[in-house]
Amino acid sequence: MVQLHDGERLDHLLAENLRIIQSPSVFAFSLDTVLLARFVYVPIQKGKIIDLCTGNGVIPLLLSGRSKAEITGVEIQERIYDMAKRSIEYNDLSKQLSIIHGDIKDMPEKLGRGKFDVVTCNPPYFPTPKADEINKNEHLAIARHEIYCTLEDVVRVSSQLVKQGGKVAFVHRPGRLMDILTLMRQYRVEPKRLQFVHPRLGKEANTILVEGIKQGSADLKILPPLYVYDEHNEYTKEIRTILYGNE
Amino acid sequence: MVQLHDGERLDHLLAENLRIIQSPSVFAFSLDTVLLARFVYVPIQKGKIIDLCTGNGVIPLLLSGRSKAEITGVEIQERIYDMAKRSIEYNDLSKQLSIIHGDIKDMPEKLGRGKFDVVTCNPPYFPTPKADEINKNEHLAIARHEIYCTLEDVVRVSSQLVKQGGKVAFVHRPGRLMDILTLMRQYRVEPKRLQFVHPRLGKEANTILVEGIKQGSADLKILPPLYVYDEHNEYTKEIRTILYGNE
Repeated sequence: MVQLHDGERLDHLLAENLRIIQSPSVFAFSLDTVLLARFVYVPIQKGKIIDLCTGNGVIPLLLSGRSKAEITGVEIQERIYDMAKRSIEYNDLSKQLSIIHGDIKDMPEKLGRGKFDVVTCNPPYFPTPKADEINKNEHLAIARHEIYCTLEDVVRVSSQLVKQGGKVAFVHRPGRLMDILTLMRQYRVEPKRLQFVHPRLGKEANTILVEGIKQGSADLKILPPLYVYDEHNEYTKEIRTILYGNE
Repeated sequence: MVQLHDGERLDHLLAENLRIIQSPSVFAFSLDTVLLARFVYVPIQKGKIIDLCTGNGVIPLLLSGRSKAEITGVEIQERIYDMAKRSIEYNDLSKQLSIIHGDIKDMPEKLGRGKFDVVTCNPPYFPTPKADEINKNEHLAIARHEIYCTLEDVVRVSSQLVKQGGKVAFVHRPGRLMDILTLMRQYRVEPKRLQFVHPRLGKEANTILVEGIKQGSADLKILPPLYVYDEHNEYTKEIRTILYGNE
């Protein structure tokens, strides 16, 4: 049993046969996050993975289906941290997954530097707007805007947490590709794999997936692109497989 | 009439109904160059365009079909410069196109800074190898390896030649994407359009096309990818159109 608060739903994470607590007015995961959980390299048998800005814990939950590594999520909003925690308990994954309520900027000191094999993050996409333009819903505003952490904070903290030769993976928008690549190189996480997500054939990309290696050599691969919708406006086969597993 | 030297052929540039002098042992243009000539923005009625490392002048020849601008090519190898010159004469394009025999690094001083609306370059792709590994054919070695100019030379010179708000477009390999983007930003040519060329559906990209704007704002678009071959190992429709025009 799980306790659901007002407005919360217990949704299915179909590909992994798990359930996750969400709330449209507080936090619900996006396709981008699911794509990041599928994109990132993970060690299968052991190791340590950390997901920054974890939200309701969707990346730790999804990665538990791909890896036996110890997986930690970090979330700054207590209300959302609590959703992640209850989802982990509901799925009986507390032995493998844990969620920390805190600021990602405090994690290198709290958890130690260079301890993680893999760092993932779906950071807030948008610069902080003027006070009168900001989303009136504080929970959504914090998740979407660089209020508590900037892109540079995310890249710097990821670089501090990952071990030498470890992997760091992000999802973001194409408009910030230059910034993210420049910051990764600056913090010595050399970009190695880049994948673009296009809404459909013939359209510009609207999402980027990038993975770097701490202290890696310069040699970037551009993976085949992903298309989300087909010509009938339905999910493509590859997206259906990512979302629902092999049917 | 045109004088052809040993080993030279007078090939068709089908899309523009032009002819071009090539020689397999000295210089022959690649698909990458044709893609760059199609990718780059050009002013239609007037302006000044310069193509660095122009080889046998394929980019100036192709651009003459898209623009009435004055187009200059720069080639360091006299033997190849001479091929470009004769091709331009053969096609009766000497009023619009001219080729300079010289080192691109001397061009900002020779031609002036900030005078061009558009700069294009298909630079040598490979770092200079050890002396015993270098291509024994000096012409091909110079065209392919960073012997006379490095990627940084190309980006720096392009930035010096282009006017504020002007466009600079390059073609290169994915392994150097990080370097080219970093250098462009360093020399204040902000990357604005990026397109990846994949040999076929489901394969990693093997070519990148990038265009930046001098002193432009940060806002990168990722265009729909290009695929070269279809499932029958034949050129895709979009590549056939680029190579042969609308049939």
